[in-house]
Parts: sequence; structure tokens; C-alpha cells
Amino acid sequence: MLQVEEKSIEMQRTAKQASKVLRVESMQKDIVRVEYAVRGEIAIRAEELRKQLSVSPNSLPFTRITNCNIGNPQQLAQRPITFFRQVAALVDYPDLLRSESNLFKPDARERAAKYLAAIGSAGAYSHSQGVPIVRREVADFIEKRDGFAADPENIFLTAGASPAVQLVLNSLISHPKVGIMIPIPQYPLYTASIALFNGTAVPYYLDEAKNWGLSKEELARSLAKARSEGVEVRALCIINPGNPTGQCLSLENMNEVVEFCKKENIVLLADEVYQTNIYKPAERPFHSFKKVVKSKGPEYDNFELISFHSVSKGMVGECGRRGGYFECTNIDPEVMAQFYKIASISLCPPVHGQLMVGLMTNPPKEGDPSYPEYRKEMDDIYQSLVRRSNTLAKALNKLEGVSCNEAEGAMYLFPTITLPRKAVEAAKALGKQPDDMYCMELLNETGVCVVPGSGFWQKEGTWHFRSTFLAPENQMGEFAESLARFHEKFMNKYR
Amino acid sequence: MLQVEEKSIEMQRTAKQASKVLRVESMQKDIVRVEYAVRGEIAIRAEELRKQLSVSPNSLPFTRITNCNIGNPQQLAQRPITFFRQVAALVDYPDLLRSESNLFKPDARERAAKYLAAIGSAGAYSHSQGVPIVRREVADFIEKRDGFAADPENIFLTAGASPAVQLVLNSLISHPKVGIMIPIPQYPLYTASIALFNGTAVPYYLDEAKNWGLSKEELARSLAKARSEGVEVRALCIINPGNPTGQCLSLENMNEVVEFCKKENIVLLADEVYQTNIYKPAERPFHSFKKVVKSKGPEYDNFELISFHSVSKGMVGECGRRGGYFECTNIDPEVMAQFYKIASISLCPPVHGQLMVGLMTNPPKEGDPSYPEYRKEMDDIYQSLVRRSNTLAKALNKLEGVSCNEAEGAMYLFPTITLPRKAVEAAKALGKQPDDMYCMELLNETGVCVVPGSGFWQKEGTWHFRSTFLAPENQMGEFAESLARFHEKFMNKYR
Repeated sequence: MLQVEEKSIEMQRTAKQASKVLRVESMQKDIVRVEYAVRGEIAIRAEELRKQLSVSPNSLPFTRITNCNIGNPQQLAQRPITFFRQVAALVDYPDLLRSESNLFKPDARERAAKYLAAIGSAGAYSHSQGVPIVRREVADFIEKRDGFAADPENIFLTAGASPAVQLVLNSLISHPKVGIMIPIPQYPLYTASIALFNGTAVPYYLDEAKNWGLSKEELARSLAKARSEGVEVRALCIINPGNPTGQCLSLENMNEVVEFCKKENIVLLADEVYQTNIYKPAERPFHSFKKVVKSKGPEYDNFELISFHSVSKGMVGECGRRGGYFECTNIDPEVMAQFYKIASISLCPPVHGQLMVGLMTNPPKEGDPSYPEYRKEMDDIYQSLVRRSNTLAKALNKLEGVSCNEAEGAMYLFPTITLPRKAVEAAKALGKQPDDMYCMELLNETGVCVVPGSGFWQKEGTWHFRSTFLAPENQMGEFAESLARFHEKFMNKYR
Repeated sequence: MLQVEEKSIEMQRTAKQASKVLRVESMQKDIVRVEYAVRGEIAIRAEELRKQLSVSPNSLPFTRITNCNIGNPQQLAQRPITFFRQVAALVDYPDLLRSESNLFKPDARERAAKYLAAIGSAGAYSHSQGVPIVRREVADFIEKRDGFAADPENIFLTAGASPAVQLVLNSLISHPKVGIMIPIPQYPLYTASIALFNGTAVPYYLDEAKNWGLSKEELARSLAKARSEGVEVRALCIINPGNPTGQCLSLENMNEVVEFCKKENIVLLADEVYQTNIYKPAERPFHSFKKVVKSKGPEYDNFELISFHSVSKGMVGECGRRGGYFECTNIDPEVMAQFYKIASISLCPPVHGQLMVGLMTNPPKEGDPSYPEYRKEMDDIYQSLVRRSNTLAKALNKLEGVSCNEAEGAMYLFPTITLPRKAVEAAKALGKQPDDMYCMELLNETGVCVVPGSGFWQKEGTWHFRSTFLAPENQMGEFAESLARFHEKFMNKYR
């Protein structure tokens, strides 16, 4: 009886859905095709478990969800930079500027007053390309970083790097055979956006054995294969420092990439959002692709480069503000006018995100009243990231069948896991990738949420997961232990 | 010699551009095709003049640019609501919660503490669909407004209404013959987005003679015409109160629209961002389409409706925060899962925008410490909008050949201008629409920036412009006078 009723309800539901205008079958098919793993099935399950814990705290074998699936530092108790937040609060509520409170140092007051004079109010729409004085701050930052001129007219402020990358990819993909070269493994923003705009992802593989290095031979192989399939390759995406892989490219390697793009007439898209998350600064300092291109002299004066940056990463970690920028180098002004037009349909990026871009690129300087506190906060976060990265890499490398490169940059480790044949078969029976199954079991048993390697794409027959190393330092020991306990149990189960 | 040099520079430029990968000719063609007037040629010219004035204040026949081209209240000196900004500042800089400052009332402190407990930090990514407790606040607001249940799971917080409308239109437009019915005149977000997603705009005309009313006969005509051309009409957009037209639909009219959509199997998209800008509340109160649909009983239980709202309008006017929401009524849960997936690629809407949605929908209540100030601020802004709307309508109706409906809602007047034949010919000679030429001359001579009717689409052979009535009250007299002087001169010039 129950079965019959259920079936009848199911049939009703289907009939009701079938009569709808807006249903998955009739939706824009590129939208339906998109896959996005960082907030996919496992993240949704983590949210369910979090809700369950808030209602019945003792109903699960763990007491909290540890979100290592996403680079969201302030969710994991990283404190914001005081100077940045003081300026934000003063801009929100300018009456504070007139108060006697000694909470605010004079340079925070000055900066807030300067921003307010430029924007009128944080509640007003700004210029669609971004507040002009903030774009000036960004240009000054780039000039100082690279030693080459930067023009505020070539800088677009955005609601973080993700919509910026999407705008540029949408512009580039004019037919389904337009190819965009992407690293494998990659941040799924790229595969998701290329699917959404109905282009062709052209994968090139990073070499795990060489610390996720990039070889010009592999770039050439990837391009030749795509071209042989009739794909018109227009752009090459580089994530440096890498996500999920954490590698930091050498200057030599970067020069090879730039020469390759020039020779092959390909636009270079440089995702440099982790440019201050550099953990081996002596061996592997950060260089921007802008600097590399500009250093190559007049022969490269027509080299098309778009570089992305964000307030969400680094030691800033202000993800929720949605702030970022992209800089156009040698991009046709008429194309930039099109970028401006599309940006203007959504009016402007969030003003608070824009101001955070200004603060990040123009922080307190030596001698400023807020400098000592700013310096200490930045250094403390940085040192803690270094320690946590090392602790986690060590813990992972101790696990049976797990091998992990140390992070040169970014916020992630991306260990390989060699899984027993039985586990691979069990996953297959469930219609899942083996690393999907591993990560789901890890979540259900320990509350630790990581992202399976399949979401980033990976070399066939290899399995990985990505974990941030952002868990609070005082939880790292417990985190590593529960990971080890789970892993041993999992391996024994499927041995 | 000079000519030769110029030609050579031009040729070089063209050669340089032609060698680029990313150029307008090779870009995604839907992007290039988009037109967006609110921030188009005239807005760009206004920005140039503003720059000129800041460098040489006496170089133009006016001393400032008056931006009546965009509903941006806080750009024009509208003060933000104190309670909202206090909460925002406390969330930005929680040390203020622990300070003794008597600037903050207890309810502002409580609200900030509540939000902080829910989000951790304004710098953390939130749930991609929006902070759960804010979605609960929105649902409570809708229930109270309409008298019908609302479910936070059907509510998506967004970076303002514009990206929300874009997400929904992108989902609906699965092939170029998908038709979206839009009012003419319309807010150009609609024509721009339909062009961007390569669908078909299906215009229905509002009747200027009947105070921009909407007739079911016109809806039927528009639909029949589209269908006869092989267009698959999937959705009907209504902007209520209207933009640029300012009309407020009667309950009778709304019932006709809902019945029409049901009969014809069309999704209703209700842009209700001006729902609190209601200037004739006795004759023309606001009703939500959600309430109208729910009032029609079980026969309408499968009626597909998506409703949009924003923090940018009303008396709130927090445009720069980028906050808004959409509510799905009877939308297939699988389709909502797709909305969620696409939202998640951009991680989350700006957290400050989300909190502003919470504050707007859950403001201080009678008896709360901040209520008297909140009430007074809201009432003062509202009364001033009523006065400014009337002043401007009167001034416009005095001009030769100009006729203007009074605003029932929204923030705009949209007068018809009957132009002399010579003006129409002069515009034609310039390759411009006559109202484009009128608005450009108005800007160049008075500094007043309005948007030509052609940007909103209009009945052929009629000319209009849209002006906000947001100029500060103490400037309204001067504004009206300079408009009158310009208009007389323009008419005499082309008589």
C-alpha cells in the first residue's frame, strides 16, 4: 500500500513538473551542463550535517564541521586586518569620524574621509569600472610591484576575481570551437565557466612529480592536439600560485609561457589571486606576468595579457566583501569599451569590495600610526599559514598511500591517494568516482569537508583531494589525528 | 603633411588591432550587440564634463553636473538610514560593540551581534543562496506584507536585482526563438540581457494616454504576433511600479495579467524594486504579484512566478551595497537547484548587501529604541520625494510641447516631447535619434544629465526622456529653471 501511494505521489509530482514552463529539460542547456564541485554534493551534505548538529549536537561521531573545502579564512577564525575594518566602519557610519573615540587612529580617519569625499556614500553607485581613486591606488601598487607603468584606465574593479574571469571568458568564447587552455588540475571556476559559455576546455597537465611544474612541451602538445581537432585556441589560463596545486612558477618557466603565447598568438589570462601567499620566498618568489611581459622589451608591445587579483585571499581574506580587479595589458581599447558596457548592466561592483581593493593595494606605510599593528597582524597570519601548511603536509605524507607536495603558495594541499582496488570497485558500484566516495565517507565520519580531486580534473587513474590549511592552529592536531584515524579505517575496510 | 601623418598613425593602429586575438570583430557577438543606454554615450559625456569642471571650474556654462540619469539617491545627497549604517559599522568593526560609545542604541548593537553570530565575519563567504537568517527575515517580511506563507528555501539573496534578473533570463533563454515579453517603455536591463543571452524581446506597449496603463488586449496582440513569427514565449516581465513610466498597476489589471499568464502557460517575472516608492497610496496602493497569485486559490497552485526586490530603491537607496533578492513561487525545485549551482560559481552575494536586505525587511519596530529616528528618516525622505516629484512634473508640463504623467510610483518622470520638424531633421543628419540629440544638448548647455527615451524603447514617432526626481530639494528650483531656459532656446533654434 505504502509503495503504491509513493508511486502515485511520484507520478503526480512528475506530471506537475512536466506541465511547468521552467524545468531542467527546457532550461538553457549550458547552465544545466555546468559542474561546480567546490560547492557541490559534499558541500551540500556538510551543510545538512551542520544543521543536524545545531539541533542535536550529540547525534554524530563529531561535534563540528571543519570546512577545508573552500579558501574562506575568516570562516575559520582568521581575524580581519584592523586598519581595513576601521576604515570600512568609518565609511559606513561617518558620525564616527566626528566622535572622540580613541579607537580610531588618525590615518584610518584620513583614509575614510578621502574615500567618502570621492564616493559620496558607500550607498551610492560608483563608476561602473570602479571608483577612480581606487583604480589609481591599484595602478600605483602594480607600478611599485613590477617597476613598470600601470594605467588606471586599464584597470577594472570587480566583485571578486570569479566574475572578472567570467566576463573575459564570455567575451573570448564566440563559438563552441573556441578553445581555452587550462591547467589540470584547475580551479573549477574555469571548467564551469567554459561550459557555461559553451566553449572548449583545452587541458594541459601539470607534472605532479615535478612539484606541479609546467613544461613548454606539454603546452605544445596540448595546443597541437586541440588544433588538430579544429579548435581555435584563443587564450591560455595560468593560475600562479596554483590552485589546487600550490606551485609557484619560476621566472624561467614564466618566460617560456610568454614566448609560447606570443609565438602561437594566444591571449594570456593570469590568475594571480594568491600572489601574497608565498611560502618559499627565497627559492620561489612571486613574479607577475605583467612584469615578465614588460621585461621582454618592445617586441612584446602588442602582447595581450589580462591579470586578475582579489581581496579574498592573501592575508586579507575578505571574501565576503566581493572585491577584486583585472588589469588589461595591450588589450584593444574597443574591447575594453565592451567590458565597460557589460559591467555597466550590473551598475557597479560592491562599493565596500572596491574600497577593500584600495586598502589592500595601499595599506599603511612605515611611519603611519597604524603601520605597526598592520605589520604585526599581516606577519602573524602569514607565519601561522606557513606553520599550518607544514603541519598538514607532514600529517598527510604519513598516511598509507598518500603523497603530498609541500605548498609553495596559495592555501591548499592536493595530495594523491592510492586507493585499494576494492575501494575503486565499491565507488564504481555507487556510480561515483573513488575520491568522491573517499571524501564523502571522510565527511560523514569526521565532519572534515574537503573537495575530491575529480572536481578539479586530474590525470586519468589518479585520485586526489584538496584541503585548505586554514583550520585554526589549535585545531590542527585534532584535525590531523581524525584524518589519520579515518584513513586507516578506510584502507582496512577496502583492503 | 599633417594629414599624411595622421593617416599613417591610423593605419598603424588598425594594423596593430587587426593582429590582436581579442578584438570587437572576433568577440562573442551577443556581447557586442548589447545596447545599454542608462550608462551610455550621454553618461560618458557627463563624466568627461565632470572631470573638466574639477580641473577648470569656470570653463563651462554651468558649475556642476546634475545626474538625473540614474536612480542613485545617495549620490544626490539623500542621507542613509542611521540604524542600517550603525549595524553595518558594528559588523565591520566589532570592537565598537565593546566600546562605551553612546552613538549606538542597544537594538543596533543587538542586531549586529545577531548577524555576527550567524556569519562569523563580514569577510567570510556566506551560503551561496544567502545567509539563512537573512532569508528568514525576508520570508517574514513577505508573509506580513501579503498574508501568505513564504519559505526561506525559495528565496535567493543576490547582488541587487540586476544580476538576479539576468540569472533568470539566462536560464529561460535556451534558444534564439525563446521570447520574453517586456513592456515598452522598459528598463534597458531587459533588452540588454535578452540580447546578451540571444533571445527574442517581445514588446507590449504601455498606454501613455491612460497613465501608462496595461491592457489585456495589448498583451494578447503582442503574444499572437510573436507566436505567428515562430517565437516560443516563455515569460512576461512586469515592472511595477513602472520604470521609466512610474505607473502603479491596479488590482484588476494585475488579476488580468495573472489570468493571461495562466491561460497562455507563461512564467511571470515581477520586478517590484519600487514597491515602497508609492506616491498615491489611496488610489494606487502597491500589491505584490505573489499576493495576487496566492489569492486566486488552488487553481493557481502551479503558477510560476519569480519576484525581484532590491535595497537600492525605496527610501533605503543603498545602491552601492549591491543587495537584493528573488522569491520563487511554484518553481520546480530542480530548477532552483540549478539557480543555486550558478550562484555558487560566484561564491556568494556581497555579505554587506545581504545584511542590508535583512535590515530593509526587518527594520526597527514600534517600541524599539531606534524606531522613532528610523520612522522620521523614512518619512522625511518619502515626503521629500513626493514634493520633488510634483515640482518636477509641474515644471515639465509648463514647457512647450512637453507633457508628463504624474508619478504614481518609482523615482522617475518620463515626459513626451513633441519636437519641431527641423530638430528631427537635424538629428537625422547627425545619425542620431531626436531625443538623443535633445538630451546631449541639454547636458552640454546645463549640466543636467537625463536619459533619452530611445534607450528605453518607445512607440515609433514619439520622443521622451527619463529624469529622476532625486535632485536635492534646494536645487529643484534652479534645476527646473535651467531646464525651462534650455528648452525654450532649443525650440527656438529648430522652429
